[in-house]
Amino acid sequence: MKISRLSRLSGVSIPTIKFYVREQLLPAGIPTARNQAEYDTTHLTRLRLIRLLTGAGMMSLASVREVLAAVDSDQLPPPELVRVVNRALLAEHAGPPADREAYDSVAPGVDRMLQRLGWRVGRSGPERESLIQALAALRALGVPCVAEELAPYAEVAEKLATQSLDRATGSGDAVLLVARIVLFDVAFDIMRRMALQHRLAEVLGEPADPPQ
Amino acid sequence: MKISRLSRLSGVSIPTIKFYVREQLLPAGIPTARNQAEYDTTHLTRLRLIRLLTGAGMMSLASVREVLAAVDSDQLPPPELVRVVNRALLAEHAGPPADREAYDSVAPGVDRMLQRLGWRVGRSGPERESLIQALAALRALGVPCVAEELAPYAEVAEKLATQSLDRATGSGDAVLLVARIVLFDVAFDIMRRMALQHRLAEVLGEPADPPQ
Repeated sequence: MKISRLSRLSGVSIPTIKFYVREQLLPAGIPTARNQAEYDTTHLTRLRLIRLLTGAGMMSLASVREVLAAVDSDQLPPPELVRVVNRALLAEHAGPPADREAYDSVAPGVDRMLQRLGWRVGRSGPERESLIQALAALRALGVPCVAEELAPYAEVAEKLATQSLDRATGSGDAVLLVARIVLFDVAFDIMRRMALQHRLAEVLGEPADPPQ
Repeated sequence: MKISRLSRLSGVSIPTIKFYVREQLLPAGIPTARNQAEYDTTHLTRLRLIRLLTGAGMMSLASVREVLAAVDSDQLPPPELVRVVNRALLAEHAGPPADREAYDSVAPGVDRMLQRLGWRVGRSGPERESLIQALAALRALGVPCVAEELAPYAEVAEKLATQSLDRATGSGDAVLLVARIVLFDVAFDIMRRMALQHRLAEVLGEPADPPQ
C-alpha cells in the first residue's frame, strides 16, 4: 500500500510516519518510484503498536525505542519482555527529584513495607525510587507519609500482577504480549476512574444516565 | 524569598518558574527592585502542586490549568473537585482515535459491561470513550475484545474509588485534596508495577535482593 493508505488505516499522519522511519522505529517501505514506497501490513501493525505505546501507554520516544528493541530481539523470554514493558510504563511517572529532606523522611517507611511484603524489588531499582519520590512529593506538601495506607493494596496489586503475567505470557507473539500488558494496564486505570466517576455521581445525587 | 531560593526549594528551574508566571499558573512575586521579586511559601506550595501534576500525574498544561482553576475556586464542593482531578488524570491516556471498525466492534461489549455494573458513567462521558478506545486499539492489533476480562476487576476498582473519595474529602484543604487524589493514584500504579517486578524476579528465579 502507499503511504497515504498506511496513514489512513493507522490514524498516524504522513509526516509522523516519515519521522518514525527517520528515527528507525519503523522500517522504510520498499521504494517503487521516485518519492514513492510500498508498505505492507507489517508496517501497519508496527505503527499501531507505536501509537499504542505513545498514546494509551503515554511513553516517551526513548521508552518506545526500548520496548521496540525488546520486541525485535527474538532472544528475550516472555518474562524479560514483560519486564521491559513494565519498566517503560513506570518510567513515565518520573518527575523532578523531591527535596532531600522529604525523600529521607519517607524512604524508611517504603523499605519497611517492601520488607514486610517480601517483594523482590531491588534497593537500587526504579520501582522503589518511584514510590519514594511519589510519597516525598506528598510529604513536601505537608501530608504525612502514607506507606502504611498503601500496604492494604499490596494484595490486590499482586493479584493483578499475577494475572497480567499469565495473560501476557500466554500470547506467543511479542507484539501481542506488549499490547496486552500496556492495554490491560491502561484499561484498569480507566476502570478505576470510571468507578470514581460513578461514586461521585451517586454522592452528588445526579440523575442516572446508564449507557443504553 | 528570592526566585533562586524558590527554585532550589521547589526543584523547579528559574526559567520554568518564569514560564509558569507568564502562563498565569503561578502568581507573580512582589516586586522589590528592578528585576527582583519576593516569593513566599504560597508560591512554594503552588509550585510543588504544579510539579506534582505535570510530573507524577503526567498532566498536560491544559489539564494542569483546569485543576488549578478548580483549586482556586472556593465554590466547588470536594466531590466536584475530585471529579475535575479524575477527569484530568483520565485525559492523559487519550491517543489518536482508533479506526472506526475496531471502535464499533468493541463499543457494545463496553456498554453491556457498564450496564451490568450499573455504573453511572454517561454515554457521552470521556470514561466510556477512553475504555472503548483502549480496547479498540487491542482489537486493531488482532486481540479479541477483552471487556469480559475486565469485569472481574470492577469490584476492586469500586473499592479503590470509595477509599479514594473518603481519603480526599477528609482533607479540608483543596491543595491537599488534589495532591492526595493524584498521588494515591500514582502510588497504586507503582505498587502494581512493583508487584509485577517481584513476580518476574520469582519466575526468572533471580536471587532475592530485599531492601534492607
